[in-house]
Amino acid sequence: MKVAVIGCGWAGIRHARAFADCGAELAWAVDTDSQRAERIRRLRSGCRVTADYREAIADPGLDAVDICLPHDLHAPVSIDCLRAGKHVLVEKPIAASLEEADRMIEAAIQTGVLLMVAENEVYSPLYRKVRDLVSEGLIGKPALVQMTRGAYATEDYKENRPWFLDAKQAAGGMMMSGGIHDVEKLRMIIGEITSVQALQAPRRCAEMGGDDTAVAVLHFENGAIGTMIQSNSYKNATTAAGEEIHRLRIDGELGSIEAAGTHGGRIRIYSEKGEGKSEGPHADTEIVVPSEDTFHLEVADFLDCLESGRTPVTAGSRMRRSLKIILGAYRSMEDGGIQVKLD
Amino acid sequence: MKVAVIGCGWAGIRHARAFADCGAELAWAVDTDSQRAERIRRLRSGCRVTADYREAIADPGLDAVDICLPHDLHAPVSIDCLRAGKHVLVEKPIAASLEEADRMIEAAIQTGVLLMVAENEVYSPLYRKVRDLVSEGLIGKPALVQMTRGAYATEDYKENRPWFLDAKQAAGGMMMSGGIHDVEKLRMIIGEITSVQALQAPRRCAEMGGDDTAVAVLHFENGAIGTMIQSNSYKNATTAAGEEIHRLRIDGELGSIEAAGTHGGRIRIYSEKGEGKSEGPHADTEIVVPSEDTFHLEVADFLDCLESGRTPVTAGSRMRRSLKIILGAYRSMEDGGIQVKLD
Amino acid sequence: MKVAVIGCGWAGIRHARAFADCGAELAWAVDTDSQRAERIRRLRSGCRVTADYREAIADPGLDAVDICLPHDLHAPVSIDCLRAGKHVLVEKPIAASLEEADRMIEAAIQTGVLLMVAENEVYSPLYRKVRDLVSEGLIGKPALVQMTRGAYATEDYKENRPWFLDAKQAAGGMMMSGGIHDVEKLRMIIGEITSVQALQAPRRCAEMGGDDTAVAVLHFENGAIGTMIQSNSYKNATTAAGEEIHRLRIDGELGSIEAAGTHGGRIRIYSEKGEGKSEGPHADTEIVVPSEDTFHLEVADFLDCLESGRTPVTAGSRMRRSLKIILGAYRSMEDGGIQVKLD
Amino acid sequence: MKVAVIGCGWAGIRHARAFADCGAELAWAVDTDSQRAERIRRLRSGCRVTADYREAIADPGLDAVDICLPHDLHAPVSIDCLRAGKHVLVEKPIAASLEEADRMIEAAIQTGVLLMVAENEVYSPLYRKVRDLVSEGLIGKPALVQMTRGAYATEDYKENRPWFLDAKQAAGGMMMSGGIHDVEKLRMIIGEITSVQALQAPRRCAEMGGDDTAVAVLHFENGAIGTMIQSNSYKNATTAAGEEIHRLRIDGELGSIEAAGTHGGRIRIYSEKGEGKSEGPHADTEIVVPSEDTFHLEVADFLDCLESGRTPVTAGSRMRRSLKIILGAYRSMEDGGIQVKLD
Repeated sequence: MKVAVIGCGWAGIRHARAFADCGAELAWAVDTDSQRAERIRRLRSGCRVTADYREAIADPGLDAVDICLPHDLHAPVSIDCLRAGKHVLVEKPIAASLEEADRMIEAAIQTGVLLMVAENEVYSPLYRKVRDLVSEGLIGKPALVQMTRGAYATEDYKENRPWFLDAKQAAGGMMMSGGIHDVEKLRMIIGEITSVQALQAPRRCAEMGGDDTAVAVLHFENGAIGTMIQSNSYKNATTAAGEEIHRLRIDGELGSIEAAGTHGGRIRIYSEKGEGKSEGPHADTEIVVPSEDTFHLEVADFLDCLESGRTPVTAGSRMRRSLKIILGAYRSMEDGGIQVKLD
Repeated sequence: MKVAVIGCGWAGIRHARAFADCGAELAWAVDTDSQRAERIRRLRSGCRVTADYREAIADPGLDAVDICLPHDLHAPVSIDCLRAGKHVLVEKPIAASLEEADRMIEAAIQTGVLLMVAENEVYSPLYRKVRDLVSEGLIGKPALVQMTRGAYATEDYKENRPWFLDAKQAAGGMMMSGGIHDVEKLRMIIGEITSVQALQAPRRCAEMGGDDTAVAVLHFENGAIGTMIQSNSYKNATTAAGEEIHRLRIDGELGSIEAAGTHGGRIRIYSEKGEGKSEGPHADTEIVVPSEDTFHLEVADFLDCLESGRTPVTAGSRMRRSLKIILGAYRSMEDGGIQVKLD
Repeated sequence: MKVAVIGCGWAGIRHARAFADCGAELAWAVDTDSQRAERIRRLRSGCRVTADYREAIADPGLDAVDICLPHDLHAPVSIDCLRAGKHVLVEKPIAASLEEADRMIEAAIQTGVLLMVAENEVYSPLYRKVRDLVSEGLIGKPALVQMTRGAYATEDYKENRPWFLDAKQAAGGMMMSGGIHDVEKLRMIIGEITSVQALQAPRRCAEMGGDDTAVAVLHFENGAIGTMIQSNSYKNATTAAGEEIHRLRIDGELGSIEAAGTHGGRIRIYSEKGEGKSEGPHADTEIVVPSEDTFHLEVADFLDCLESGRTPVTAGSRMRRSLKIILGAYRSMEDGGIQVKLD
Repeated sequence: MKVAVIGCGWAGIRHARAFADCGAELAWAVDTDSQRAERIRRLRSGCRVTADYREAIADPGLDAVDICLPHDLHAPVSIDCLRAGKHVLVEKPIAASLEEADRMIEAAIQTGVLLMVAENEVYSPLYRKVRDLVSEGLIGKPALVQMTRGAYATEDYKENRPWFLDAKQAAGGMMMSGGIHDVEKLRMIIGEITSVQALQAPRRCAEMGGDDTAVAVLHFENGAIGTMIQSNSYKNATTAAGEEIHRLRIDGELGSIEAAGTHGGRIRIYSEKGEGKSEGPHADTEIVVPSEDTFHLEVADFLDCLESGRTPVTAGSRMRRSLKIILGAYRSMEDGGIQVKLD
């Protein structure tokens, strides 16, 4: 399997290492910044460098591309690649607009290749465990969901992801870049989201073109409601030291689940399933879920889907919906927090 | 100072002990349940018991009453007491409607007596410390507020507060009974609230007439936004063992403050005030605020206001606004989460 | 049941309240400081005050005495009371020396009255739960025990317990005043202690005549070893705010148990009992044990033993052994940490 | 700088990566297991593999060796390498006996090459920060030290380090393999250790030839005392999931410091320095120390010492003392916990 990595920044290097670990042939490293491309070229002998992805997809031996570009380039580059008959793994969000996503999905159908979105967090063993616990009925029917993603845009953070700060290139701010992850995890764990309302907090990160902090209120098809906080101005000793805070609490009829972590972490459970309301002593259970490399897991799944013909859980068609929810949140923010129904 | 306690349940007994500790003369214990009244009568020799508050306020030597009744009785009983020329300390919320609150305030003005609301949590040393830290500018201008109040309606909980479960007597559910506390604390700490949106989660506490779990989104005059969660179906080992969870996090321009506790507890602070963005090591500070009896503090303040003529911080006129905010939240809940402006 | 409380300080007032709650008749409050005695006298009509315990025990109607005096007075006062035919509840430690304890035990045997030591912590629901979990085999055979008791001798602390600071009156320092509690709990939970070694840390509490910080290493009959730390110079925000830190961790063949708290608190359990080594996910369980008034529990048990003729778990004869262990620790401290065997 | 890695197991691969990152030339990968050697050979083109370290040190171009072998092989292999004029970086402990260590130190002196011990934990930014805080006087003179190292010998753990379980190859059990790290950190932070007593807990890890759990009591030259717990049968969800627990608490005259972590982690500080006993509010400060690769740091320091001629902080002569302390602990364990003075 010969692969080109298009965009050799923060995500590109992680994906490239995963492709190398999985035994794929890194054929091309594509970046307008040759130094960044060079970091990937070194990972495998025979890897070529170019500043123009068109040169890579002109390679008839190339099977697939991995697109790790600013969000507004996802659609145009993906469509070129899909039309060239290359399988596409494209970073989240699938695109900057639903129209773009539709054209990508259409292009994949026409050429019969795979369009998969690189949503690594649905591969997290931590959140998959949460999903399993909920689906086993441990806390009964979910009623209230609280999701928080907090980072701190330190100088390092801003230098590493310059276009994150540009509202056009990133197709928004934190609600887009972070919220798209969390919405997809919530769909996996709780179920479909049917309406969204959102508000933007006063901006504290001056360099941020979009929202640096936003709150969304979500309604789920099964009746649950939820809050979701996205912020890169969430300041603590922890975030100042470069670590993000990802938390989820779900309250259900029979108990609650709290998770903290990204690729691994801890889950705290209180459950009255099968025992009625416990008379005491009152016990929580805390599970440690060892961390796994979710970039590796998603890349391995992409390769496995190519080999087996299986449809990935993050197929373009499914991931269009997450984008729709986030775009709904932006529409709500623009209109002062109105409720946006998602039919 | 001769005082009658009208309503000798959970709050009444706490207030009565505080009056006794402050050296006030407990003259009357009023309750339709004579056993409950008896618990207070025993606290002080000379205390008389009656099932009818009219008998108590007919006592010309009586100076003040303390009303700890179901919320829908606050107004009619208070107005009778105020018209009888008795100072009134009435439990939160001031009344079940703004019209009722207006009539109470008007009655107090006409007879020249004091109308104070027993909002004990604004006397909490924990939240007063949070207020001080915010007003000293430790975290700069607040941007995002997260407030959570979680309890678990165990059998004990429900037996101890039967009318809490009745939506008419309680003038709502948890957004009223718990939210009124938190809204007032947020006004003290952050500033005035200008709009509210709210949603009710699916009911899990079958005996609860009103909302057992609700979420509000708040806008503050100074631009901050906030989420507030009120639930008596917040199930953990902690709440199952009978302890409530009260948490507040405020994110500002220069840092964050997290508080956990009610009458005392812990405050965690991250601040970059006066030092620019710290280059590390990155430090949080955690303050332990010893618990104080907030019922005692509010009762002592009531007595001090009576003696000094000072206006209490929880005067009826101010507390009308907290009720307005909560009633706005209920209006929003009824209309699917619309934004209710609070002029 | 008519009771005299002899010594109306910190412990005396707590015991007196417990006797009152249990329906015993507080007949005498004995203290050389009449103000302190007065605090107890007020608890019950008919209670008389005296500075001389001999006056109280001359009262033929008196059934029992509760001795809450400095440790070096436990024996002489107890023996007078026992010889007067009064049942004795005496604060821990039973006495300042084994010879004194022997004379007390002998006096109780001769007069046929009850000699019980007020060791409240063995009544703690937290540590009784730990004992139950260990005896159910949840962690298998215990191998390693870590016990820590940390307080901070703030000005308040020192004012409230002046004779604690006097090595003669307290019969030692923290290893005596705190260690006697912990040794007894460990005997209850783990089993008999067969040898002890101890070391004293450099003194940091200048007013303390005895050890302010000491470490003991314990051997148990069943093979386990343990460390025990006793300190009133254990400085944190928590202890500076007046709260003591009590922790216990037990590692056994099949898991571990950690407890934090005194009268109630939290227990964290990891157990592989009945399932072999778990393959994951790896889970701890955390139990919340609501706090109970252990002074009330011990006093109620004293009264129940008097009524039923049952031997209390903290009978003088058993508590002599705890004193022996602690005196062994002091002997070891004096000889630079030698091992003291306890036959 | 041409380097041979002798022993390509758990530590060897980490060191080899560090040498590669530092730009050293990995010339030889030496292991009797060719598959393990191969993992290192792949890291750098030109690296050769051999099963016999004598072949590598016969290479005249070779400058230095890195010895990551079972503890009982440290001395014989090091001495051969030193005599061949190669600089030596040898894993901790320096050797299995003081006599061996002496011969190694002597060999280095005679041939004029560097003998450095790979004690990575003294390079930990977490413990260096603790050292700095103590030496700045933040907690005054240390009085009580508590150090804990807990792991769980899961099947993975045992497979990865087979000779750890052999008391002869490892020159002991956990007190040697883990204790040698902690003793050296304590010497760095607190000062010299002058006596040691130690006890072994009942064995729970059946495959372990030496102690699986041991406790030491330490005296420091400056008067402080301390406890140190070493265990690979410290069972929790955390350790069962493969994460070790490393904790240190130091109580001093003016406060306390608690650290948790290995290469990075958190430090909690309570200090009354410069302010007298604080009147409250009582505050702890918690510092986040980002993790660094301590294997990289020690290897970089080794290379820097070679270039500059500087003596490393973990020179053989200094590290002999740590071994002496641990061997003293073993002597104490054999004699039932007697005190072993370390002149």
